[in-house]
Amino acid sequence: MKIGWIGTGVMGNSMCAHLIKKGYNAFVYNRTESKTQFLASLGAKVCSSPAEVSNNSDIIFSIVGYPADVKDIYLGDNGVLAGARHGSNIIDMTTSTPALAEKIYKEAKNKNIGSLDAPVSGGDIGAKEATLSIMVGGDEETFNKILPLFKLLGKNIALMGGPGKGQHTKMSNQIVIASTMVGVVEGLLYAQKAGLDQNKLVDIIGQGAAASFSLNNLGRRIINKNFDPGFFIKHFIKDMGIALEEARRMNLSLPGLALANQLYISASAIGLENLGTQALYKALSHINSVKGD
Amino acid sequence: MKIGWIGTGVMGNSMCAHLIKKGYNAFVYNRTESKTQFLASLGAKVCSSPAEVSNNSDIIFSIVGYPADVKDIYLGDNGVLAGARHGSNIIDMTTSTPALAEKIYKEAKNKNIGSLDAPVSGGDIGAKEATLSIMVGGDEETFNKILPLFKLLGKNIALMGGPGKGQHTKMSNQIVIASTMVGVVEGLLYAQKAGLDQNKLVDIIGQGAAASFSLNNLGRRIINKNFDPGFFIKHFIKDMGIALEEARRMNLSLPGLALANQLYISASAIGLENLGTQALYKALSHINSVKGD
Repeated sequence: MKIGWIGTGVMGNSMCAHLIKKGYNAFVYNRTESKTQFLASLGAKVCSSPAEVSNNSDIIFSIVGYPADVKDIYLGDNGVLAGARHGSNIIDMTTSTPALAEKIYKEAKNKNIGSLDAPVSGGDIGAKEATLSIMVGGDEETFNKILPLFKLLGKNIALMGGPGKGQHTKMSNQIVIASTMVGVVEGLLYAQKAGLDQNKLVDIIGQGAAASFSLNNLGRRIINKNFDPGFFIKHFIKDMGIALEEARRMNLSLPGLALANQLYISASAIGLENLGTQALYKALSHINSVKGD
Repeated sequence: MKIGWIGTGVMGNSMCAHLIKKGYNAFVYNRTESKTQFLASLGAKVCSSPAEVSNNSDIIFSIVGYPADVKDIYLGDNGVLAGARHGSNIIDMTTSTPALAEKIYKEAKNKNIGSLDAPVSGGDIGAKEATLSIMVGGDEETFNKILPLFKLLGKNIALMGGPGKGQHTKMSNQIVIASTMVGVVEGLLYAQKAGLDQNKLVDIIGQGAAASFSLNNLGRRIINKNFDPGFFIKHFIKDMGIALEEARRMNLSLPGLALANQLYISASAIGLENLGTQALYKALSHINSVKGD
């Protein structure tokens, strides 16, 4: 079976490599062609457009940056749908808008092409170790066809409902994380001001009702002044923007998400957009003129 | 060795009972005397004032409602310090203000009495099962004397620094929880609006970067429409009030905590103060005219 892979950044490179190593022939495309070198070295054929990828493939995956990129890649001239064959399947793993996922699903269906939205969580490490969580929206029939390939990429995989429901699930995930990060950062900042040993703090509160992945992992990175990106602030701001827009569309007020978004924008304003989400600590330290960096 | 116990509510009853069962003679006091019946049935002597408790005890514990109660009990006429003997030790386990803990420590020290602030987390179940986390502020010497008794009440016990540092640790804990709860509630509410199965949502996002005690425990209670108090909203509002006042005193702006506090006040405004903190879901549903109850 031939697969296509569009978007060969940190995530896409690791994910596509897993499939190639299992024997799939891969046709790959990236806007910046040099970024396909790694996969080419594994035997992938480099294509010059998304349409060329889809014309050669039975299943086409994509994981790119922004919803606008997803739209271009699927619906643009020389896009995936322009080249895709009847009976093929397209799987967008970008974190993007539910509305766009529904639109692509409909246009694909008209051409007898299966479509899933399948955003992931777990970051670069999850991609490398094939331990991603994969949140899928679309038809059960298509899901069942693709499931064996998803299992080569992740370990926690669920069909959450029809088209767009994978994206909605990812939005819920990001909404939970947004305010959780605010709580972690504020709790640690309070501790610093109050003269507590932050490591001892996480030792004692990180096992009880305050426990979270954010506290026990990103909190420790904050304490160690490690602000390297596991997940970029600029990407988190994109995701929160999508979630806020979807919530507005559903007539849903989410004050915590709105505040978290504003705080992350303030982080971006002082030049932290290419650091990890835990660098919100630096932004709140800055607001408070606390030495946090 | 004789112990005193002031405050025989849900927490105090379970905690004092552990000590009585290990052979300590207990002198107990509660403002509402009828609430001492359970401990009296275990052999505790019921006293008519905090001073009578302290005059009969080597180590005096307290766990009551509000900082004003702590102040009355320790510093009032017929208070603990009025009756306490030289060389005794006083341990306040109420979640109260760091400033009050420092004040009691100083007044106690003048009378050659050891003092610790030792608030707990883990709730009624932690008290019953002796699995509380105990966050202690005060002198190391006093801490080491009391540690064997703490070990009968909890399993995660740490001296966090001098007087008040136990309370500061508890405040950090509550600050982390406050915004984490906002994130959990907003994520679940978004999911409801988007038509997701909330249990499937927690199944898939509750293992990754969004994982928290709040999501995996209180989130499940929300989904099951169980809003019974593990921890009362009215007590959480008290704690957030203390944390905000302490932060203001330290010139520290914590916008996430301030928002969480306002949202919990709105929950109280619609009569939810005697439900558990997870009932914030009902308040946010109410704001959004979503059926959340």
